[in-house]
Amino acid sequence: MTEDLATADALPGRARRGGRAGKRSGSATFEQPAFRQLVNPFEPTKIVSDDALEAIHEASLRVLRDIGVEVLHDEARAIMKAHGADVRPDTQRVHFDPALILELIVHCPSAFEVHARNPAHNLRMGGRNLIVAEMASAPNCSDADRGRRPGNREDFRNFVKLSQMHNIIQCQGGYPVEPVDIHAGIRHLECLRDIVTLTDKAFHIYSLGKERNLDGIEIARIARGVSREQFANEVSCFTIINTNSPLKLDVPMMEGIIQMARHGQAVIVTPFTLAGAMAPVTIAGAVVQQNAEALAALAFAQMVRKGAPVGYGGFTSNVDMRSGAPAFGTPEYMKAQLLGGQLARRYAIPYRSSNVCAANTVDAQAAYESVFSLWGCVQGGANMIKHAAGWLEGGLCCSYEKMMLDIDLLQMMAEFMAPLDLSEDALAVEAIREVGPGGHFFGSPHTQARYKTAFYAPIISDWRNYENWAQGGSPTSIDHANRLWKERLAIYEPPPMDEGIRDELNDFVERRIREGGAPTDF
Amino acid sequence: MTEDLATADALPGRARRGGRAGKRSGSATFEQPAFRQLVNPFEPTKIVSDDALEAIHEASLRVLRDIGVEVLHDEARAIMKAHGADVRPDTQRVHFDPALILELIVHCPSAFEVHARNPAHNLRMGGRNLIVAEMASAPNCSDADRGRRPGNREDFRNFVKLSQMHNIIQCQGGYPVEPVDIHAGIRHLECLRDIVTLTDKAFHIYSLGKERNLDGIEIARIARGVSREQFANEVSCFTIINTNSPLKLDVPMMEGIIQMARHGQAVIVTPFTLAGAMAPVTIAGAVVQQNAEALAALAFAQMVRKGAPVGYGGFTSNVDMRSGAPAFGTPEYMKAQLLGGQLARRYAIPYRSSNVCAANTVDAQAAYESVFSLWGCVQGGANMIKHAAGWLEGGLCCSYEKMMLDIDLLQMMAEFMAPLDLSEDALAVEAIREVGPGGHFFGSPHTQARYKTAFYAPIISDWRNYENWAQGGSPTSIDHANRLWKERLAIYEPPPMDEGIRDELNDFVERRIREGGAPTDF
Repeated sequence: MTEDLATADALPGRARRGGRAGKRSGSATFEQPAFRQLVNPFEPTKIVSDDALEAIHEASLRVLRDIGVEVLHDEARAIMKAHGADVRPDTQRVHFDPALILELIVHCPSAFEVHARNPAHNLRMGGRNLIVAEMASAPNCSDADRGRRPGNREDFRNFVKLSQMHNIIQCQGGYPVEPVDIHAGIRHLECLRDIVTLTDKAFHIYSLGKERNLDGIEIARIARGVSREQFANEVSCFTIINTNSPLKLDVPMMEGIIQMARHGQAVIVTPFTLAGAMAPVTIAGAVVQQNAEALAALAFAQMVRKGAPVGYGGFTSNVDMRSGAPAFGTPEYMKAQLLGGQLARRYAIPYRSSNVCAANTVDAQAAYESVFSLWGCVQGGANMIKHAAGWLEGGLCCSYEKMMLDIDLLQMMAEFMAPLDLSEDALAVEAIREVGPGGHFFGSPHTQARYKTAFYAPIISDWRNYENWAQGGSPTSIDHANRLWKERLAIYEPPPMDEGIRDELNDFVERRIREGGAPTDF
Repeated sequence: MTEDLATADALPGRARRGGRAGKRSGSATFEQPAFRQLVNPFEPTKIVSDDALEAIHEASLRVLRDIGVEVLHDEARAIMKAHGADVRPDTQRVHFDPALILELIVHCPSAFEVHARNPAHNLRMGGRNLIVAEMASAPNCSDADRGRRPGNREDFRNFVKLSQMHNIIQCQGGYPVEPVDIHAGIRHLECLRDIVTLTDKAFHIYSLGKERNLDGIEIARIARGVSREQFANEVSCFTIINTNSPLKLDVPMMEGIIQMARHGQAVIVTPFTLAGAMAPVTIAGAVVQQNAEALAALAFAQMVRKGAPVGYGGFTSNVDMRSGAPAFGTPEYMKAQLLGGQLARRYAIPYRSSNVCAANTVDAQAAYESVFSLWGCVQGGANMIKHAAGWLEGGLCCSYEKMMLDIDLLQMMAEFMAPLDLSEDALAVEAIREVGPGGHFFGSPHTQARYKTAFYAPIISDWRNYENWAQGGSPTSIDHANRLWKERLAIYEPPPMDEGIRDELNDFVERRIREGGAPTDF
């Protein structure tokens, strides 16, 4: 039924979508919903009137015109100057005329396809489509058995394997945990080789200098086994561009936009505007700044290449005003999610949000902050949920148990978005007649024909009654999650890879490692 | 700001709203948002098209016409017959012509005021207004120190006190836990006396026979200190009418409708339609049945008294098909919440939903099932959230820790619904200019002027970083909740009560106890 809605969603470009790839992924020995393109059937929730939205939009343009942004990258400033921005000698401050920004951003595509090396895992970004990406960039990881530890390659690989195994995690959003036991100069080579061999889904590459962008782009091309020409016309990887809020665009970020846009790969601009810290303490003000920074970077991407595939990212949240620590999944975060979505739709640019929390363990807080975040994602009309599975501690830790919890939450979100069966048979007037007043539907033919697939079967929820649950040792959600990730990792199987591609990939990675990888002075 | 929206909400009747009653409640020695009428600013989310909604509506009318409902109450059948329903001798089955149902339900008021004995705690039911009621009817209660135990008067009183202390719990939805140490014949007298002395908010009375309805109505009148005539024109208490699904309306429920409607008090009809058990296994079919049952009882209330204040309750959820145990806060539950809201709005009747879960302890499951439920309440346009605080184990237990968790969740929900400040000052362009690229907003005058009240301060969330949290003993949400309810109960103070009213109340209750209370053969 999702397929119908996806078809009704009139987007430019080809219509290919995920499909059902359980078999191809090689590890479907547990029950889970099929891999599919998620489509959000709900009208996004507006948090402000159209007039108020215009006021925010205008305020952002005023910021860009009157205050400007600091652009640390010389070539980027030259490109901006060539396109008519107000760039003066001896200063990095660049001012943009509102008309210039608006002329440029109309070139942002409203939707595009994201190609995975397994075409069954291709995704659509934009419109009513929703893409789910695993958590990224945690310095630490943890599980309930061994506790918390710095990121390392084994844990990195385990998280990547879990994302491959679970259909609801549709692409790799970065390194779920930073494997600090791999030298920083070659880490991107080893990690991306791991990602393209352990998974067959689309993935993110970090913008940490030109070499890393180009290496990532080449690895994505090799993994898909396509020509450079074809690759440049098919988004196969994406990068997140975080502005240095407030109002700074640094060298690696600008370089990332240049390289990715030139190679036809996706740039998701996400200002990190924490209200009260790097942005005004008012949510409206923080979003004005978010929007100004996003528009500057998005317009720049269109200067580099008209029609460059981009996304509008929102990450505005509040901070704990006592400690300055970021807070997530709060009412303020949700409001910023809805508002960011309204702005992105105003510009017809795909919208990225996140599933985030500030909790330190997989307790009620982790769950409520995450579901509040998902609420904001779905009702805010997000097209991509980054950090969708694993995120704990405001992003400082990737948790095995949180990953399993998030998989369940995401699967429930997907089920909530799946259209209701409204057929005459589903309306069940005949079944109601057969059972009659005072009867029971358990044994009725209408129920018997459907009960196995009628409802989503959660993987964490414990629905036993209190007595059976207590007799079973009173397990909490974290206990169920702990058992699950071990059960699932134990049956991981890598997806198939063409031997020619594998050789080319290894040759490339080994050569680049021999060459010393990439500079580490970023 | 909420006030503006509430004013914009064009509802019939007087405009009085909650106001800020912190001082009057006598126990405001901790920080919390003021008591206020919640107003939902968001357009409700439609889950089906208008055509599909009509198909469900028509199917429900077909059920009432062709299958009918069993009405066990003789006087009720006589009233139905007098109003033109198809009532035949020697059978309790009653069939309704669709036109009859539709003629009657147009008399349901779309909104009404609910009067508390403290007028500052009056509430509006209907329109965009949202009322929050404490959990009701648990046979057991629990806390993390003493575990689980059958309901008793001390725990009953404690939960009632907590609901009085917290502004976000706006009325009493019933007995939070069933005090089985009070004899069933006089339990309603003792419990309602407790409720009207320990709280000054509006409350629910159970429909368990005529005497209990009449006693509850008289206690509500005495507590408000108003005449019978005034009372009959001012909703001051409400009852929940659960149909005996499928398609049965029993004696106490029909009696409850008769007594409450005759006395001008509110009837919230809530079919308990668990898909796959008491209703069809398809959500659409279960809602068809829910709607048929609701329409029958709502139409009956209008037969008793045209314009009787009513609410449309939805409680449709799925069951665990292995055990038959009810599940809550599931994707299916959320879909039913949205669909129920669409139906209630189609009939312009205030909509009641619930904050429910199946979890056995206050773990991640309790939190995610509850937030999913609140998501369905808010986006489904609910006007009343029953079981909003304390609910655990599918309703079999009221938990002290869950109550504190829910208070935090509800306060966050309320903050999410509070309008954004969109003033020029909040857009903060000047503040952005002052701080400039690369600066920090922590110390800026714009931040300093606002930081104390800029963000909602959660009561459960632990926002410390991992190291400080670990050093603090790694407390989870349940630990924080456990500390909180004890701190708060320790400072409870009863709201003031006029001595004349107290005497009249005690005289009435003591007399009714001497008379033997109410029959216990219900």
